[in-house]
Amino acid sequence: MKKEVPLHQAKWLIEAGCVVLVTGGTMAKANVMTFSWQTPIHTADPCRVLLVINQIRYTYEFIKENGELVINVPGVDLLEATHRVGRISGRGIDKFADSGLTPVPAHVVKPPLIEQCAGHLECRVTQTFAIDTHDLLICDVVHASAEQDLFDGAWIPEKFHTLHYLNGNQYGLLQQRVEAPEP
Amino acid sequence: MKKEVPLHQAKWLIEAGCVVLVTGGTMAKANVMTFSWQTPIHTADPCRVLLVINQIRYTYEFIKENGELVINVPGVDLLEATHRVGRISGRGIDKFADSGLTPVPAHVVKPPLIEQCAGHLECRVTQTFAIDTHDLLICDVVHASAEQDLFDGAWIPEKFHTLHYLNGNQYGLLQQRVEAPEP
Repeated sequence: MKKEVPLHQAKWLIEAGCVVLVTGGTMAKANVMTFSWQTPIHTADPCRVLLVINQIRYTYEFIKENGELVINVPGVDLLEATHRVGRISGRGIDKFADSGLTPVPAHVVKPPLIEQCAGHLECRVTQTFAIDTHDLLICDVVHASAEQDLFDGAWIPEKFHTLHYLNGNQYGLLQQRVEAPEP
Repeated sequence: MKKEVPLHQAKWLIEAGCVVLVTGGTMAKANVMTFSWQTPIHTADPCRVLLVINQIRYTYEFIKENGELVINVPGVDLLEATHRVGRISGRGIDKFADSGLTPVPAHVVKPPLIEQCAGHLECRVTQTFAIDTHDLLICDVVHASAEQDLFDGAWIPEKFHTLHYLNGNQYGLLQQRVEAPEP
């Protein structure tokens, strides 16, 4: 079951550098694409993240419509769908129907959550910087939620294997947690 | 043995979202700190990456001196040193001597490489954007190198376990590569 994650803990859903699925649009008409280029940029209050998007992406047209997006965190069970929605464009097809990903209403923003993902950051874009062909989207996280059995302030890699993009069609899996001695 | 990585492949050293060690300064006087907040922002030509740094960090003073930095990629064998240089400040101590990390000359830029790390992106800062307490550093990668047995266009997670920050003193390990079917 998913539970709300306090905003001061929300950044931990993407801190490990995993691949995410970003949705834009509304429940009536949405699109989804795979991202590997995102990072937290503030610890909390506000919880703030950055995404890097190519200006020509179809999903970006949806994001610009209402200035909102959702970052969804897939696990290895969504490997095929994650790669697929990163490779094909939603122009002319419904990527949700094509990939089997299910859009469900978010708590605060208009774009849908992806039901099969284990965590969600609902975001509002507050600033944009253009760097040649790409835009940096600065987002405030306004709601966060995660599977309570898989996230205890961090993903539990023994239970939930996030995907980390390596190259081509290859992904690395996070499977084990280690502890460093505190200085 | 380390070999030069062509710049159009350099972004793959950090694509998976691993923790990195960033050096600034010169061989005569340098500092090092741990980063988890960085991402590629351009595929190639130029190879461009972004780092997010708190404006108060001591390492940032070194980076501003010459506008250069090196992103070094540690594996799990450097877990303790990686956590240590992320927790303590270099004000008043030599973090290299303290952590056992060895600075060696870079190929192109003034800040040192860390000898024990498996890969290096030598970078020049080209633009900076302030977001409240943090700066976004836009960097061009001007030289890249990696252990040839561990990097074949991507890190080989069965041989080289990158560190992915989870929370507190906990890190996840990338240990296995999976392949998605191509659409």
